[in-house]
Amino acid sequence: MNSYELHYPLVMDDNTKNMMANAYGALLQEKERGVTGYYNLPEDSLLLVEELQKEHPFDDFDRIAVIGIGGSSLGTKALHSFLGPKKKHLPIYFLENPDPVELRQTFEKLDKERTLFLVISKSGTTIETISIFKAAIEHFSLEVESNRHIAVITDVDSPLHKFAEEFGLKSFAIPKNVGGRFSVLSAVGIVPLTLAGFDTPKLLQGAKGMIEGFFALKEEHILQKAAFIAQNWPTYRMNVLFSYANELEDFNKWYVQLWGESLGKKDRYGKNVGPTPIGHIGPVDQHSFLQLIMEGPRDKTVSFLCIEDFEETLAIPNLSLPYLEKTDFVNGATFGRLVDEECKATMSSVRSQKIPIDHIVVPKFCEEGIGELIAYYELLTSATGAMLGIHTYNQPGVELGKKILKERFTK
Amino acid sequence: MNSYELHYPLVMDDNTKNMMANAYGALLQEKERGVTGYYNLPEDSLLLVEELQKEHPFDDFDRIAVIGIGGSSLGTKALHSFLGPKKKHLPIYFLENPDPVELRQTFEKLDKERTLFLVISKSGTTIETISIFKAAIEHFSLEVESNRHIAVITDVDSPLHKFAEEFGLKSFAIPKNVGGRFSVLSAVGIVPLTLAGFDTPKLLQGAKGMIEGFFALKEEHILQKAAFIAQNWPTYRMNVLFSYANELEDFNKWYVQLWGESLGKKDRYGKNVGPTPIGHIGPVDQHSFLQLIMEGPRDKTVSFLCIEDFEETLAIPNLSLPYLEKTDFVNGATFGRLVDEECKATMSSVRSQKIPIDHIVVPKFCEEGIGELIAYYELLTSATGAMLGIHTYNQPGVELGKKILKERFTK
Repeated sequence: MNSYELHYPLVMDDNTKNMMANAYGALLQEKERGVTGYYNLPEDSLLLVEELQKEHPFDDFDRIAVIGIGGSSLGTKALHSFLGPKKKHLPIYFLENPDPVELRQTFEKLDKERTLFLVISKSGTTIETISIFKAAIEHFSLEVESNRHIAVITDVDSPLHKFAEEFGLKSFAIPKNVGGRFSVLSAVGIVPLTLAGFDTPKLLQGAKGMIEGFFALKEEHILQKAAFIAQNWPTYRMNVLFSYANELEDFNKWYVQLWGESLGKKDRYGKNVGPTPIGHIGPVDQHSFLQLIMEGPRDKTVSFLCIEDFEETLAIPNLSLPYLEKTDFVNGATFGRLVDEECKATMSSVRSQKIPIDHIVVPKFCEEGIGELIAYYELLTSATGAMLGIHTYNQPGVELGKKILKERFTK
Repeated sequence: MNSYELHYPLVMDDNTKNMMANAYGALLQEKERGVTGYYNLPEDSLLLVEELQKEHPFDDFDRIAVIGIGGSSLGTKALHSFLGPKKKHLPIYFLENPDPVELRQTFEKLDKERTLFLVISKSGTTIETISIFKAAIEHFSLEVESNRHIAVITDVDSPLHKFAEEFGLKSFAIPKNVGGRFSVLSAVGIVPLTLAGFDTPKLLQGAKGMIEGFFALKEEHILQKAAFIAQNWPTYRMNVLFSYANELEDFNKWYVQLWGESLGKKDRYGKNVGPTPIGHIGPVDQHSFLQLIMEGPRDKTVSFLCIEDFEETLAIPNLSLPYLEKTDFVNGATFGRLVDEECKATMSSVRSQKIPIDHIVVPKFCEEGIGELIAYYELLTSATGAMLGIHTYNQPGVELGKKILKERFTK
């Protein structure tokens, strides 16, 4: 349903072909051996949606507060921002950053009676998340025991899971073999989005199509893109995702986490490797970052992500203002077309500089399209990681900071 | 008032000292010859503030709509987001991205009688800005003639200026020698922020102190940071600004434009040069981008930007939850302290990897501090540009896209 066009100067020699075949084999093994479980989420999470629709495990609410950070919030935020403006749904608020100014502002939009609080942490002891949960308990005078306005989403047997059991709170499991940044299609994203009223079966269907297609060898462009990046990252050190809709800004952040945390690693020889992900929003950042892409060093690949149809009739009026006639050439066009043409014009101008680009088109603000795109980026990340010879699914580099933080508080 | 600590392994040999002295001399010349005018804005714009406070050129309004993109919006947005939550002020809405979904949502928050529309474009013919202005005229049935709810901010003698004269609209001038991305302290930012009720004289005072200090040779750290970046950008290809407050997210975007558009250039030998600016938000992006910084390639410098005092008492309750006792070590701390300690812990862990870092501290959400920070980054950009031997103040790389856009509409 989406379209993917690749204009990377990939040399399709035996080396590249082997690289692609090996990565495909590695992902197939990961899937079959359950090394990572995200490949199965589109099917598994359908059961969860059915359960939610049947059971009604919560008392009435008209807004949802997601208490979570990183992998526990970015994916849900991405989908909520993308689908939100065009759908009727309950609002979702994110209690994510412990920044106290932001926290207090968000608290003011919530209340005890009408808010469903979802506490989300894979490990169950994320310091920001549990601290914010404690502050919410105090701020709203929440009685935790058997509260039908609080649920947790966490690993089975995590401390948070045990806490929920102790107090008789509803608990949803994140599969052990699904890492935080690959978890958006698990309970982490599916519970809040389903309860808010989004069409999550269609979301899962979009993802399922992409994953099945990949394993049926119908999405070779993913392996090609991964091969180019894995071969050339020391030259093309950055991949810029240039997304043409404000509604994709949180998707960009999700992509940055997925890619950065998965691919920024020591490889099997102890070498520090990994291309850097950067997110930008068009047309705004054409007035910002584009100059650097066009005339700066040739160290970036650029992925253009566009919405084909904004399904919005707002147009530039046929109005000619004195002295401003120079701008009349867009008169009568919808703003959606203006954005789309700007994407294409920028893409042409970047291509003219022989900068490797690719072009992804999502037909509209729909669940299938974004579900497919989520799976596309997850597969791309796994394939690139396999080719780089790294552990794609861990994140050892963040532990030291946590240790130092604890020392700073306890010394 | 802010503090700036540099931990870059700069070699202070004669070459570096000459580089710094030459760049200082180049900036002094720019200032004295009027090559760029931003050095004088802190003084010049004070007159504008006085004029606004005396003249009351507009009929009553209780919200402001800024119609502008890139250099005409990013700086104002940065200051509005940073100062906004802590101050009583009129809301400012930004009609920036032609994305029609976003545009329509913002239109719904505005009306004809209570909104002051500021149309901002340096050239006067920015296609997005004039198109959105036309849409606003139609949507709100604005009668343009002598309208005391519409003003323009543009170059003297630009088409937009002439349009304003024709219709008897109030017009504010952007000095010819102040480029868009250096214009936040000109009428571009000062008019909306003053009218919204921010203490712009203090903002200008903060900037003035930094500029005067720099030219009095009291801010050598700026030249040192610039020298390290100019000498080492082919190794350290990215500078990550890691800002520890959600209120700094728009500031990050302003920094990305300022740095990217100024420093991404062909140098005097035709070589494509320039380090890439990246913005991140802590603690959120500790759960995202940090892994890549810690274990990925050594191709980044990292600037940590922290708020010393959030002036917000919201604290983590002294609450011990069963099974979650592991998180109790932060109990009783304010969230402001948690954020600050996370910044310091992350900084230590990044430093332990011998990654060059610097640490900027702004005391609180105040006009002086952010005004100073704006001037700091402008001076850093100018100094780095001088050392790279590039034209810091133009942006030739964005013209081709504009040309292609026009062709796509007119062919």
